[in-house]
Amino acid sequence: MATFKGLAMLGYNTIGWIEKEAPKCGPNDALCRPLALSPCTSDVHTVWEGALGDRHDLILGHEASAEVIEVGSLVKDFKAGDKVIIPAITPDWQSVEAQMGYSQHSGGMLNGWKFSNVKDGVFGECFHVNEADGNLAHLPEGIDISDAVMLSDMVPTGFHGANLAEVEYGDTVVVVGIGPVGLMAVAGSVLRGAGRVFAVGARKHCQEVARYYGATDIVNYREGDIVKQILEATNGKFVDKVILAGGDVDTFDQAIKLVRRGGIVSNVNYLGTGDYIKIPRLDWGLGMGHICVIGGLMPGGRKNMEYLSELLVHGRLDVSPLLTHRFSKFEDVEEALLMMKDKTEDLIKPVVTL
Amino acid sequence: MATFKGLAMLGYNTIGWIEKEAPKCGPNDALCRPLALSPCTSDVHTVWEGALGDRHDLILGHEASAEVIEVGSLVKDFKAGDKVIIPAITPDWQSVEAQMGYSQHSGGMLNGWKFSNVKDGVFGECFHVNEADGNLAHLPEGIDISDAVMLSDMVPTGFHGANLAEVEYGDTVVVVGIGPVGLMAVAGSVLRGAGRVFAVGARKHCQEVARYYGATDIVNYREGDIVKQILEATNGKFVDKVILAGGDVDTFDQAIKLVRRGGIVSNVNYLGTGDYIKIPRLDWGLGMGHICVIGGLMPGGRKNMEYLSELLVHGRLDVSPLLTHRFSKFEDVEEALLMMKDKTEDLIKPVVTL
Amino acid sequence: MATFKGLAMLGYNTIGWIEKEAPKCGPNDALCRPLALSPCTSDVHTVWEGALGDRHDLILGHEASAEVIEVGSLVKDFKAGDKVIIPAITPDWQSVEAQMGYSQHSGGMLNGWKFSNVKDGVFGECFHVNEADGNLAHLPEGIDISDAVMLSDMVPTGFHGANLAEVEYGDTVVVVGIGPVGLMAVAGSVLRGAGRVFAVGARKHCQEVARYYGATDIVNYREGDIVKQILEATNGKFVDKVILAGGDVDTFDQAIKLVRRGGIVSNVNYLGTGDYIKIPRLDWGLGMGHICVIGGLMPGGRKNMEYLSELLVHGRLDVSPLLTHRFSKFEDVEEALLMMKDKTEDLIKPVVTL
Amino acid sequence: MATFKGLAMLGYNTIGWIEKEAPKCGPNDALCRPLALSPCTSDVHTVWEGALGDRHDLILGHEASAEVIEVGSLVKDFKAGDKVIIPAITPDWQSVEAQMGYSQHSGGMLNGWKFSNVKDGVFGECFHVNEADGNLAHLPEGIDISDAVMLSDMVPTGFHGANLAEVEYGDTVVVVGIGPVGLMAVAGSVLRGAGRVFAVGARKHCQEVARYYGATDIVNYREGDIVKQILEATNGKFVDKVILAGGDVDTFDQAIKLVRRGGIVSNVNYLGTGDYIKIPRLDWGLGMGHICVIGGLMPGGRKNMEYLSELLVHGRLDVSPLLTHRFSKFEDVEEALLMMKDKTEDLIKPVVTL
Repeated sequence: MATFKGLAMLGYNTIGWIEKEAPKCGPNDALCRPLALSPCTSDVHTVWEGALGDRHDLILGHEASAEVIEVGSLVKDFKAGDKVIIPAITPDWQSVEAQMGYSQHSGGMLNGWKFSNVKDGVFGECFHVNEADGNLAHLPEGIDISDAVMLSDMVPTGFHGANLAEVEYGDTVVVVGIGPVGLMAVAGSVLRGAGRVFAVGARKHCQEVARYYGATDIVNYREGDIVKQILEATNGKFVDKVILAGGDVDTFDQAIKLVRRGGIVSNVNYLGTGDYIKIPRLDWGLGMGHICVIGGLMPGGRKNMEYLSELLVHGRLDVSPLLTHRFSKFEDVEEALLMMKDKTEDLIKPVVTL
Repeated sequence: MATFKGLAMLGYNTIGWIEKEAPKCGPNDALCRPLALSPCTSDVHTVWEGALGDRHDLILGHEASAEVIEVGSLVKDFKAGDKVIIPAITPDWQSVEAQMGYSQHSGGMLNGWKFSNVKDGVFGECFHVNEADGNLAHLPEGIDISDAVMLSDMVPTGFHGANLAEVEYGDTVVVVGIGPVGLMAVAGSVLRGAGRVFAVGARKHCQEVARYYGATDIVNYREGDIVKQILEATNGKFVDKVILAGGDVDTFDQAIKLVRRGGIVSNVNYLGTGDYIKIPRLDWGLGMGHICVIGGLMPGGRKNMEYLSELLVHGRLDVSPLLTHRFSKFEDVEEALLMMKDKTEDLIKPVVTL
Repeated sequence: MATFKGLAMLGYNTIGWIEKEAPKCGPNDALCRPLALSPCTSDVHTVWEGALGDRHDLILGHEASAEVIEVGSLVKDFKAGDKVIIPAITPDWQSVEAQMGYSQHSGGMLNGWKFSNVKDGVFGECFHVNEADGNLAHLPEGIDISDAVMLSDMVPTGFHGANLAEVEYGDTVVVVGIGPVGLMAVAGSVLRGAGRVFAVGARKHCQEVARYYGATDIVNYREGDIVKQILEATNGKFVDKVILAGGDVDTFDQAIKLVRRGGIVSNVNYLGTGDYIKIPRLDWGLGMGHICVIGGLMPGGRKNMEYLSELLVHGRLDVSPLLTHRFSKFEDVEEALLMMKDKTEDLIKPVVTL
Repeated sequence: MATFKGLAMLGYNTIGWIEKEAPKCGPNDALCRPLALSPCTSDVHTVWEGALGDRHDLILGHEASAEVIEVGSLVKDFKAGDKVIIPAITPDWQSVEAQMGYSQHSGGMLNGWKFSNVKDGVFGECFHVNEADGNLAHLPEGIDISDAVMLSDMVPTGFHGANLAEVEYGDTVVVVGIGPVGLMAVAGSVLRGAGRVFAVGARKHCQEVARYYGATDIVNYREGDIVKQILEATNGKFVDKVILAGGDVDTFDQAIKLVRRGGIVSNVNYLGTGDYIKIPRLDWGLGMGHICVIGGLMPGGRKNMEYLSELLVHGRLDVSPLLTHRFSKFEDVEEALLMMKDKTEDLIKPVVTL
């Protein structure tokens, strides 16, 4: 393949199809062609909010399942023809950051995020994966290629929220935001043993899906202050953990007001604007209340894909309710992306199966 | 109540009903009368295997839900008439061990276990609970008094096995033993996010219930070496964690042979005989394989009861499949205990509701 | 002792000596008389800044070593005449919070702090200790009664900062503030294996003592922005951990700008004013940088006292450089307290040995 | 360099100098020439005890500091001429095991150990380092090239023992074995905040050096049962942690008998013989005593080298007392190795500086 076609950010506010030279496959790398694709709200941020600054002819997308078409000479565990899961985050595994357990920041803050950021993304007929042995995972038998796309970002990001929150048996958890990541934070909390789970969001269909994934209480922020609503429901008892998969820099204030001493506020929401996250001093115990505030990008890499895919294989998690809109041609990824931009009431995620 | 009746170990191999003076209620303590009771295999060990040495007129039992009939002057959160969950383990909360996070060993190895060990158990018309504020939990609305009895020991012990094993999303877990504790270790593993779960046991009904709680594979030790059976099923891949809720000192050898580097073998099985647990040197990586071997008594106390009961309240866990045999008179606890001794094929746990 | 004398907060801005009825010793409790005392900056906050609101005739002080004069009927490990270490924080050990590992918040935010807060403090001829078995520690042979006073608050608070920061071998640590708590955070960091340690403070004598405790670099905030100074010294490399033992709500902004991905900002500084702690969004990785922000009151109780005192017994830690001013009569505690209010250049801590 | 000379295991029981073709430098790799070398007891095990089976013409050695002579095309952070620290363990960083935090087992049990195991070691004029960016560390200014050799294995192995034992402030720790690894386990325990440290060993000079590194009590196993000696010294109180850096499979029995509930027995000793490690059932709390048994190979890689070297740079650790015998010619490595085989009373480690 000398050249290939892909859906790109042409510049601020503009997308379009472009033709590019095929990437080179280094000794540790792989080239893949997509089997299924899904746009992400981050793609929308990138193009229409300039989240990464202005970019020209950058192919978009970081959620895909794929088939390997070429591997480098040092790749041991994958070969052309293999069907694979691709994580959105593909770290440099030799980096000191990866050795410390923070591979998503290999080489610098958030630098494990390469697709549609520091190189072309997966919305092309062909795309490049660095360190294939460390960043691909074999697609297990029994996982549908569309479902597999949810393992790229939605499942690991939502579940990372539950992991950062260290959800334990019987915890009462609040999940703010019930887009696909928030829904996976609900599912991930339940799969770590949460008891009561409050899901905060306004869209009807998402509320239903939140209940499907185990939310016990739905809180609509349009119907009043969420702190008041939740503490009324608990008779004033603080919750154990809050996972932020929506809201903005001001939502932390509410989160701190909800959580008990020794509790955790964990964020997996991209905070696009605002100078400061503000932690209310009194509710934070004058600095001495043992309320941990932490936020992080999902961990990428093969291990995470392999373990999360086990949950699909063994029926612990069904991601199909996330896939509300389905397309079947490569070119449809454009319509799918625009759909993600103009979120309709019943949209969770569109997926394009090739 | 000047005196009360209870089912006691009269001496080695003998049980019978005795009349005792009512215990005194210290300032921190409570007296309770049972609402529901269940015998445990440990009671069988105590009477017919002399596990605790010879005992005379010791009232048996450590699994009960109850009603408070009296509280001491310093008790703040409970009063006569309250319905409560009683943990089998009732630590001394001021002890240094409790302050270290090992309340079950408050005052010495296993010394948080007081009922039918260092004092009369719960198979009496009245029983004593030390440090009521720390060791009772209010029975939440919606939890049946029979179900609540499973929170005394079976749920926390099985779930402690999963906690010690640090089960994570997608882990492959082997649970050895599918009596009530093993079944709860299966359920507890699934509720911590396990993927594939092998349940090892021979009894048909228990196998079915293991599948109900999420076991994906049943391994019958009567049909061959379990190591061979499991590694065949995984194509030779080691499992992440092994939880021992059955077997004996020799089962550790098999467990080590199953588990990966960085994996954990966790034991919640009472090891009644044998001089040594033996860890095979080669499989343990010549001492350098990072396979952790740990075992522990369930944590007692109020917090654990409160959090585990949330799982019942919110429908995450249904313990009723454990309750295979039901009785309705206090005196039936004798028959229930004998039933536990002579385990029939279809028995998991008998429960007596008063 | 029918009545006793003590140094009290009479009202906002006023201290004085008062006579009070001796406290009653409950069954779990002890009464003590001080052997050595030290005022704390918190006492200053209480009286002259109204940190706890207005209080009348509240005896001050929470740092003391003492002799037991009476114990309750249920106390097992202490008796009149025993010499003891008294932690500033004396939790209710049966509380659910203590069972969760947050005993300092037993019964509510910061409620493990009882002396000179919810009851009379230690600046009396006699004072009351709740739950003596859980909250006293025997004074080991070889620890001076004045040194022992530093175990009440200064050592455990500073060391808690290093614990919350999870200092590891070779970590580069910044400690902001080099009053007695900051100095103990320096010592505690070194005793957890820190490599390079930056100590931020302006007072000359404290800088010298910081070097004594292992600070490798002294940063004077009066000589320029500390972020700039420190990143220049490291050639732009972020530090691993920041411990805040000084500064105010605005210092968190600087701390976040210093710390690496996966790093921790830990606070043990009482934040007396300001509505919000502000976390800079960009430096916090847009919410995804894995920089943990945590703050907490020191853990109280016997276990902590026993283990920290081992460091003095075995010569790992010498607290005597903290004791810059020494007094020898009970009444001198007033002068010592005023000295703490009007901090002179060379003051770290005054101590009164009786 | 077409060929190079090295000290090899010629076959079981035999060593000698051989000439080999220079290794090829893959795109991720580096070639190095040693600056300083030290033989290890493992080399002795390999040659004279056949620990790795029979090997022919395998160049020995895994402890070295070095100069880079060539790097592969993908190596970013190192170039010819750089002075480097070389860890004994050089993992494959893309492996799933490394992503799990067990890089030392990348690709299989202990497979991160490559030098003088799966490929030629460092006792050659030239040697090959896989994944240079992940497995080399720049030698910081101020660290002597001889001292740096102790960072290859002795420091990280001993300190790993203290890390696995999770030594905390004030812990009482027993270190069994006071060869170089045991001595570093003593130093590592003290640098994690240990209080009392028992060092178990018989050789006089090593006992002195153990005291230098912070051991408070020396226990000579030739003078009686070590369990009895230690429990006498503690008045029967169990210790918090035991680190095994010596002894054999039977030493675990003693370790378990020493350690408290919730304590840890950590092993960093290569267990060369014996079928089973035996854990005494009763002392292990009948399987329920929460005594963790864990053992592991040191973690390799760049991050560990960088952080441990900070301890030397900032004067927290002085390894020079380990270097009891010094040589200055490459060929002297043979004598140094034989010296390691026939340990004299005053030997800790010989080092050859080129």
